Amino acid sequence: MKVNDCFVSAPGKAILHGEHAVVHGKVALAVSLNLRTFLKLKATTTGKVCINLPNIDIFLSWDLSELKQLIPYCCAQRVELKCLDPELVRRLREFVGAADGNLDTCHMATLAFLYLYLSLFGSGELPSLTVSVWSELPTGAGLGSSAAYSVCLAAALLCTSGAITAPLREPDHAARWCQEDLELINSWAFRGEMIIHGNPSGVDNAVGTWGGMLRFLAGKIIPLSRVPLLRILLTNTKVPRSTKVLVAGVKDKINKFPAVMTPVLDSVDAISCTCEKVLSDMTSEPITGEHYNILEELIDINQHHLNVLGVGHPALDTLCRVTLTRGLHSKLTGAGGGGCGVTLLRPGWP
Amino acid sequence: MKVNDCFVSAPGKAILHGEHAVVHGKVALAVSLNLRTFLKLKATTTGKVCINLPNIDIFLSWDLSELKQLIPYCCAQRVELKCLDPELVRRLREFVGAADGNLDTCHMATLAFLYLYLSLFGSGELPSLTVSVWSELPTGAGLGSSAAYSVCLAAALLCTSGAITAPLREPDHAARWCQEDLELINSWAFRGEMIIHGNPSGVDNAVGTWGGMLRFLAGKIIPLSRVPLLRILLTNTKVPRSTKVLVAGVKDKINKFPAVMTPVLDSVDAISCTCEKVLSDMTSEPITGEHYNILEELIDINQHHLNVLGVGHPALDTLCRVTLTRGLHSKLTGAGGGGCGVTLLRPGWP
Repeated sequence: MKVNDCFVSAPGKAILHGEHAVVHGKVALAVSLNLRTFLKLKATTTGKVCINLPNIDIFLSWDLSELKQLIPYCCAQRVELKCLDPELVRRLREFVGAADGNLDTCHMATLAFLYLYLSLFGSGELPSLTVSVWSELPTGAGLGSSAAYSVCLAAALLCTSGAITAPLREPDHAARWCQEDLELINSWAFRGEMIIHGNPSGVDNAVGTWGGMLRFLAGKIIPLSRVPLLRILLTNTKVPRSTKVLVAGVKDKINKFPAVMTPVLDSVDAISCTCEKVLSDMTSEPITGEHYNILEELIDINQHHLNVLGVGHPALDTLCRVTLTRGLHSKLTGAGGGGCGVTLLRPGWP
Repeated sequence: MKVNDCFVSAPGKAILHGEHAVVHGKVALAVSLNLRTFLKLKATTTGKVCINLPNIDIFLSWDLSELKQLIPYCCAQRVELKCLDPELVRRLREFVGAADGNLDTCHMATLAFLYLYLSLFGSGELPSLTVSVWSELPTGAGLGSSAAYSVCLAAALLCTSGAITAPLREPDHAARWCQEDLELINSWAFRGEMIIHGNPSGVDNAVGTWGGMLRFLAGKIIPLSRVPLLRILLTNTKVPRSTKVLVAGVKDKINKFPAVMTPVLDSVDAISCTCEKVLSDMTSEPITGEHYNILEELIDINQHHLNVLGVGHPALDTLCRVTLTRGLHSKLTGAGGGGCGVTLLRPGWP
């Protein structure tokens, strides 16, 4: 089977407001970054499937004959279903030598690729191809690198399989798919995220698929139609942490002090809503210093709330303190406990 | 008129939780300190009234004949009334040369003394006496030094006037008045506070009068019956600030972001209530590390909330950071924006 070459990219994400609170039914705002993941799919005649992920030192190839032996296990897969085929996952784990519970980045990236490749091509002829992915996003920093990877995989493989058609390509312009195709890309990217993360919220792949800014509430993701371009300084503390442990810690704290913590979540919710309102205002009226004053105040308040939730870290405190000496306001983004911080830059800065 | 000598003292106070929130109808907890103000009243035969306040360099004396001229203006004073006699205040301001609006510590201390002296003795013969007051409390640090002063003045002058009787004095023991006498002392101390502060909450004079720990809610002050002894490190940042400006700033912030700020006040309320519960538990069950863990967590959360309310200060941030390096937890106490911080010490510390 001969397929067309394909080149796609997807952005990373940062949570502006509402991390952790979103787990407890509150609004979160996620924004796409201008840091992207790029994927090039090249048709080959080698009878091999190759995947090159230079960022994480993965260069693997399989003979099509090897992969064909896995086809019997992917017939149960239904494209409409928003869940994984457990039998295929089990066989693939065996195939790549990743025991159940193994969440190693390299294994998970390989698994996600093979899962999508076999699910989308298993019912027909397996194509010989080489997929190369490189990214401007650090892994494990909460910037949605795995989602951007999954979105690129889904888009390229869906396009190659003929499930969606390559959008009209204007010279020197990025192309976009129609809403229906984006929904399909997002649903397959979500499967990739499920393989990599186990229980993803779906926010990251949605931002990777749609870009721009999204409002997330109780599992419902709404892309915001009009948002201003914000300049955000990202700082990676490089302090490693476990999202799972942090989320559990917040839950424990809420259970320990319900009357103290519940109002804090309500306040975070109001921060997200107020921020969304201000960002919307900034697209319909002249942007003033007061808009930025409010955005900065909300950042400061939320950073305090995140500390109250117990997901701060001394490295993040340092970030806030150091940036404040330059008149800049910062907060952690994502799971916290280390990871990345965002600092809002005003248009004229520095 | 010959009177008996008298020696009294009253403690300063710190707000444990609920400062600022109390202005918006939430619970506050105030504790008395082992820093006290002492007053010695000595009967004299010089025909003079002398007041010595070495802490603020006041050493004044008046001939009884001078003071007698003010008596006509204090006849309207009713002891039951919980408000000031405006005519007497006006005359006394003229007498001591303090223009209306002048809130200078020395003038206010003099005014409070003369107001209480004339109110309590104006209907009879003015006694010749010397009042000396000294204090372990710094002024203007939010530790209730003016209230401790007012309580001492009220107690000593009420006792001297015969309105209350000196309590039974056991050798080597501090003596206490009965509840009714304490109410009277408190009501007169409140008048002293009104002269010094304009619009006091009544918390400071209540702590000065009753000692121990008090719960304050919507103007109602309830002394807590059983509380453990806490070791608290007080740090005076010596950063000057205006309580009035800080209170107004909090109000502005609530008006600006009502949905964000109102839950924060609710959370502070829950912190005060949770703290009260833990302190009560500590008197009825063996004190454990977990009691202190909770008290420390509540301190940290409230300090974040106070920063959200906008009453923090870099000097207070430094206090929190430095003490935390020793495993200690701190928060601002009182108005914030500088002033004092409290650090909880565990029984075995250091």
